[in-house]
Amino acid sequence: MHRDTALLAVDWGSSSLRGARLDGAGRVLEQRVFAQGVLSVAPGQFAGVFESAFGDWRRASGAPCLISGMAGSQQGWQETAYCACPAGFDELAAQLSPLAQEPGCALIALVPGLRCDGDCTLAGLDRVPDVMRGEEVQIFGAMQITGLRDGLFVLPGTHSKWARVAAARVTGFKTYMSGEFFALLRQHSMLARSLDANAEPDSDAFARGVQRSAQGAGLLHDAFGVRTLSLFGHMDAAALQSYLSGLLIGAEISAQSLRSGAEVILIGAPALTTLYAQALALHGVACVCLDEQATWAGLFALSRGLGTATP
Amino acid sequence: MHRDTALLAVDWGSSSLRGARLDGAGRVLEQRVFAQGVLSVAPGQFAGVFESAFGDWRRASGAPCLISGMAGSQQGWQETAYCACPAGFDELAAQLSPLAQEPGCALIALVPGLRCDGDCTLAGLDRVPDVMRGEEVQIFGAMQITGLRDGLFVLPGTHSKWARVAAARVTGFKTYMSGEFFALLRQHSMLARSLDANAEPDSDAFARGVQRSAQGAGLLHDAFGVRTLSLFGHMDAAALQSYLSGLLIGAEISAQSLRSGAEVILIGAPALTTLYAQALALHGVACVCLDEQATWAGLFALSRGLGTATP
Repeated sequence: MHRDTALLAVDWGSSSLRGARLDGAGRVLEQRVFAQGVLSVAPGQFAGVFESAFGDWRRASGAPCLISGMAGSQQGWQETAYCACPAGFDELAAQLSPLAQEPGCALIALVPGLRCDGDCTLAGLDRVPDVMRGEEVQIFGAMQITGLRDGLFVLPGTHSKWARVAAARVTGFKTYMSGEFFALLRQHSMLARSLDANAEPDSDAFARGVQRSAQGAGLLHDAFGVRTLSLFGHMDAAALQSYLSGLLIGAEISAQSLRSGAEVILIGAPALTTLYAQALALHGVACVCLDEQATWAGLFALSRGLGTATP
Repeated sequence: MHRDTALLAVDWGSSSLRGARLDGAGRVLEQRVFAQGVLSVAPGQFAGVFESAFGDWRRASGAPCLISGMAGSQQGWQETAYCACPAGFDELAAQLSPLAQEPGCALIALVPGLRCDGDCTLAGLDRVPDVMRGEEVQIFGAMQITGLRDGLFVLPGTHSKWARVAAARVTGFKTYMSGEFFALLRQHSMLARSLDANAEPDSDAFARGVQRSAQGAGLLHDAFGVRTLSLFGHMDAAALQSYLSGLLIGAEISAQSLRSGAEVILIGAPALTTLYAQALALHGVACVCLDEQATWAGLFALSRGLGTATP
């Protein structure tokens, strides 16, 4: 029995399903990770996958469950709204979306995503919007952990998010497809044959990529340099994979208006935040790094309102 | 019999094989296009593919043949050198590379490519080089046709080239992977499901993409807007494909230092140069557009030295 469990916290993203049992103080008692991301689950199968992953936790604890991430998307378990920015913790907590459950079962609720209007208009159109699902929980969790109420919160990944926080509210954010571009170039482009996909990370080559992207020639041109550096033997296949990674992360960072001496809050898997921290340091920017603890802290904080939100 | 044929001009690129019979004044008598680009030909099979494509022309005319493009690359028929920039017509003509032929056969020669050193150094490395194979013939051909000896020559494609010409010499150039990025995003990315791959070109949506990219948020961010514009129904799947095309061509153009009122020479297939001309016009830049005639004019000019180059 898991009588010490106060919350089942679940982050169901595009490519993975992670869960944790948290106690009444928000401490992690146990964690699980599964490969069944939202994109791999067929419509109608979400309840079954959830049951296989966490059914035993549910029955043993009787605790409520909060789920963040792409589970609330069109392709997910049940579509939830996007909270409009600027958005604070209370707006998010007020829009938790309970799933229909059999009587007597503990509550399962989905956390909404965030949306914002971008910084530009197109002729005859509204501003280009931006969206996130899951990262908002990590941002509010990071505020819980650090006590910060203002700053630039960066969440690297397939689709990296750069979010501005002021007075504990997310005022706006931008998505960068750096992780997906890297995967596309590595797997499907003409550059693939110049790269060693199994290479160990090469810190020097990564730094050169970041440095190159900062010179402003543009990603479309810099990427071709991977081919020519290979062609003339200036860099080997093992190093070029890290060089390409540096070009992409560097392009993402160069697109920001960061002054040297600034500080950002980096949230994500350590393998990725380490790379971003190195790249940001080359731009003179310092980092506070947080891992998945931010997710659990955010979901735990949101769960505090569950007792009052449901009868 | 083709006694009027003075040259067989062949452009053997990555994805296609094109040839023309030219008369003694450089006029095109007949053209052929085949899908057998260099990337689809196995090592050792080049002579056979060439024979199937143009053997009848060879036998009927007895004319020499000049081949430009990726046929001279590592993956091609026979590797040829790169001429170093700055390079003029004479340097190129001096490095034609004859293929070994049976006695009595007319000459077949490959045209070398061009290489240049890029505009940056990496810590501990040489400058990042750049290369072209085939476009150099089009540039010199365009000079023949237009009489221009100075300017910016732009060759859109899978790997677009922007080449500077001064006093009839190519002083340097840069490659942009815009065409390949477009194909990758359209075929393999998360954006694919937001696009209608069979859509007719949408000129307004294309212009919006160019306009968006000019705002400088960066391609990694702008590309994600294709998803959100779709998600909120701001643009339909048919228009979004042209919007994405505008983002990419726009990013390539925004990476240049073009002043409004400038003029460039655009060389390529009309379907592509038309798009580039529209995007450049949005940047206040005028164009002179040339098609494959530039290739035949360049190869014809190079063939004038063949008689003296071979015994």
